[in-house]
Amino acid sequence: MKKSLMALAFLGAFAGVAHAQTAVQIYGNLDAGFIKDTDKTLSIGKRAANTLGFKGTEDLGNGLKALFQLEIRYEPDTGTVESNSRPLFQGQSRVGLQGDFGMVRLGRGLTPMQETIGAFEPWHGLPTSAGFYTDVEVAGYTSQPLDPAGSSNNRWSNGFWYNSPANLWGGFQVNAAVATKEANGGAALVGTGTSTAPQYPANSEASANPFSLSATYNNGPVSAMAAYERNAVETKFWSLGGAINATPDLKLMATYARQDQGHTFAFNPRTKAWVLGAQYSVGPGKVLAGIGSKNPDGAPKTKQFSLGYEYSLSKRTYVYVDASRKKDITGATHLLSNPSTVNHYDVGVNHSF
Amino acid sequence: MKKSLMALAFLGAFAGVAHAQTAVQIYGNLDAGFIKDTDKTLSIGKRAANTLGFKGTEDLGNGLKALFQLEIRYEPDTGTVESNSRPLFQGQSRVGLQGDFGMVRLGRGLTPMQETIGAFEPWHGLPTSAGFYTDVEVAGYTSQPLDPAGSSNNRWSNGFWYNSPANLWGGFQVNAAVATKEANGGAALVGTGTSTAPQYPANSEASANPFSLSATYNNGPVSAMAAYERNAVETKFWSLGGAINATPDLKLMATYARQDQGHTFAFNPRTKAWVLGAQYSVGPGKVLAGIGSKNPDGAPKTKQFSLGYEYSLSKRTYVYVDASRKKDITGATHLLSNPSTVNHYDVGVNHSF
Amino acid sequence: MKKSLMALAFLGAFAGVAHAQTAVQIYGNLDAGFIKDTDKTLSIGKRAANTLGFKGTEDLGNGLKALFQLEIRYEPDTGTVESNSRPLFQGQSRVGLQGDFGMVRLGRGLTPMQETIGAFEPWHGLPTSAGFYTDVEVAGYTSQPLDPAGSSNNRWSNGFWYNSPANLWGGFQVNAAVATKEANGGAALVGTGTSTAPQYPANSEASANPFSLSATYNNGPVSAMAAYERNAVETKFWSLGGAINATPDLKLMATYARQDQGHTFAFNPRTKAWVLGAQYSVGPGKVLAGIGSKNPDGAPKTKQFSLGYEYSLSKRTYVYVDASRKKDITGATHLLSNPSTVNHYDVGVNHSF
Repeated sequence: MKKSLMALAFLGAFAGVAHAQTAVQIYGNLDAGFIKDTDKTLSIGKRAANTLGFKGTEDLGNGLKALFQLEIRYEPDTGTVESNSRPLFQGQSRVGLQGDFGMVRLGRGLTPMQETIGAFEPWHGLPTSAGFYTDVEVAGYTSQPLDPAGSSNNRWSNGFWYNSPANLWGGFQVNAAVATKEANGGAALVGTGTSTAPQYPANSEASANPFSLSATYNNGPVSAMAAYERNAVETKFWSLGGAINATPDLKLMATYARQDQGHTFAFNPRTKAWVLGAQYSVGPGKVLAGIGSKNPDGAPKTKQFSLGYEYSLSKRTYVYVDASRKKDITGATHLLSNPSTVNHYDVGVNHSF
Repeated sequence: MKKSLMALAFLGAFAGVAHAQTAVQIYGNLDAGFIKDTDKTLSIGKRAANTLGFKGTEDLGNGLKALFQLEIRYEPDTGTVESNSRPLFQGQSRVGLQGDFGMVRLGRGLTPMQETIGAFEPWHGLPTSAGFYTDVEVAGYTSQPLDPAGSSNNRWSNGFWYNSPANLWGGFQVNAAVATKEANGGAALVGTGTSTAPQYPANSEASANPFSLSATYNNGPVSAMAAYERNAVETKFWSLGGAINATPDLKLMATYARQDQGHTFAFNPRTKAWVLGAQYSVGPGKVLAGIGSKNPDGAPKTKQFSLGYEYSLSKRTYVYVDASRKKDITGATHLLSNPSTVNHYDVGVNHSF
Repeated sequence: MKKSLMALAFLGAFAGVAHAQTAVQIYGNLDAGFIKDTDKTLSIGKRAANTLGFKGTEDLGNGLKALFQLEIRYEPDTGTVESNSRPLFQGQSRVGLQGDFGMVRLGRGLTPMQETIGAFEPWHGLPTSAGFYTDVEVAGYTSQPLDPAGSSNNRWSNGFWYNSPANLWGGFQVNAAVATKEANGGAALVGTGTSTAPQYPANSEASANPFSLSATYNNGPVSAMAAYERNAVETKFWSLGGAINATPDLKLMATYARQDQGHTFAFNPRTKAWVLGAQYSVGPGKVLAGIGSKNPDGAPKTKQFSLGYEYSLSKRTYVYVDASRKKDITGATHLLSNPSTVNHYDVGVNHSF
């Protein structure tokens, strides 16, 4: 029987508090620093993505758990949501169940490929220009080509995720996601069409369900990965990676990736990329180093070399400094409007909470 | 005397923590599932509104309390705020006082009519297409016709709310709200004017103060409601409803509603609607069933039949499945551009925190 | 060595909870009331800025602390972010370190001048029309003239802040901030140029680094301040202020300020302003009174007189009522399109949490 409205207001609004207090954890991080790029003014910006999140789990009995996670992404230098254009919960918004079978989730989040490859990158997969993750390591690939211009490149809306348990078959884990074909309101993508008859008109549905697969292997000092993804315009991406703790203080890592845009590019659809990286710990400090290359068919090749240092003030707070050089290497007949070499320097602080 | 700025910064920014920790409760829910509608691609979406809220009360002594509530609404499948267009605190943003006299609040929230009628609907007033609340039950009525296009239909900005105590006169409760005439930046509403001289030009103020009244009665297995509301363009709406727990497991409910748009419609201003519903509990499961009709003067009549099932995994988490058919029944000479019958199916999970 | 993805998901997403729970404090306030201004309809709005914030500190040892603060600003009458246009974390988004040397922070927040001068204003620096802070006290000056139209007037993005300890040299504190020249996406500012060749085209960088300095002095019943600021279009602002607790219940205060827009105004670049104020406590009540004047060269002079009363229901909740008159006093040949006198009345409630 319906409770009275007043009682409802109280139950809905002010009771239920006992469980609320224990069910929600707030977490996040704030990273800001000074950045200087070639031909740009000194700026204040970020090295890591900035988050403010809310999450929780509920024990359902029999080893089953319900879980949710909502993660705001923002720009600390201007106070806006990420890029002043992305969804409020750009980080992720997912609900799911977890048990002996692994974990299933629905909503928006990183694709399994993007999540896996970022973990084999010497800058921890951070979006900084000093790192390799957002451009070089993924060979220029984007997971959401039909989404609006302000979207990021590595997430799916309207996705369904599955993660196996961590120690499937002695060290293996498999991760998979598939997204619906739903239109997300993006601009037209010309592709193999024309500007008046684009291959994907504005607000197109996907021509095939995007899917993403990754497998990881962990055994003592060795880890490895393989990933495959196909996005909404049927671009195909695969990657292999490996890492080894050569000594307790030295970790070496490498990834190789290929992107095939044959569905939307009439010519030169392939891009190859590789990244080699190292992390070397010295007391509370860690030296990061990486070199990488992105090589699109018939377009300038990108080469990047980066060096960084992180110094931990505590478990939750570290300061950092990076220097990086990114070069576009072109054939003799190729003209570039952008500067062919960009040097990047940053120094800042990262605080987790 | 003014404290030093440093002290201020610390008092303002980092002290006051002791009370903050006890004063704010975080709550919400995340609901996502698969949806398939006639002639649409399979999608991931919601059945319930999704919320992340912050609320609290303060004991002022003598039975008086101060209270506040701020409630974010969002879309978990894309991570945006609700409909990617609504206010951040679409759920509500209100502050008020509460005591023996009842509760008074200022801000933005559901109108008393909308809150009351939603509680007599078999899908708990959820916004899913399987339910009757957002369209059929309210006879197509909107509480905020002069607000911007992205606004919802059942809330007021700039409102003042009063709720009586729950057990006024043995089972009765009365609820009332009134809004200011303030313009909210909406588009023009042609009404009885012309497109060049609309009855309500863009960013119009209300022509009369919107108000909303509802009364509920609860006595053992029986509950009943009556509600009346007038919006900013003087559309009038009234509704009657009743519910009975026929057995401990079976609840039956019905509402009847009329909308009168005589102030803005030169012809056929009236719409009538009714909904009959049932909820039947079987262990941790609940079967939902409903049938309803919306009948606008001189326009196609809508008929809807829905069947659903909810299964509780815990007090805070349930899974659900729904099937629904909605039909536009037209006179012989009436042409429709939309499909005359839409079938809706969904399956998903709802987790509260 | 890389942890497995599943383990990462759990560590990243669901562990780390122990510290999260203690590291983040939620705080804020909700202020709403009725407002009536000359020639405007009765409205519901705010007297104070409305906030919902997240903040925390971490002890790094040796007297050093890391700190962060993220503060949402919103409009409770409509549920939107502040002005339905400002950044999500309009209040502030800063990270920093604090120790014996004082405090350094990076991000977005009030300038030191704006923070200091607001504390010498009889309405506590609140943005209400009854107060003097946002217009009269600062002589019409804005700290961010090149930011987008929806921005506030008293904050910086891309800033670096330093606050000295509170008791530097027996009662003195100094505060400083500097911002980068980064473009923030604002509209063109004509200045001494023309509409086709504006002095600052759209999305201009600052022509010089904005900076802001303030010093405060506190000694028993006496406090004083001096502040100087230069914004992105090289407008210069300075101010002096003082306050004295004449009796334990009576506080008197005064500020004087000058703005020099010589860099962008060919004629009449100077504006002067003064405010005199008093606060008188009577039990849980406080009477506020102020008179002020803004006097731009060659433009109408503004005079304002205000009277208010605050009554505390508790430490965290008070009700208020204000009456204010603002007059534009023009020379004989000056024509005004706006009403020359605006009366303002408000009554409402302020609740902190």
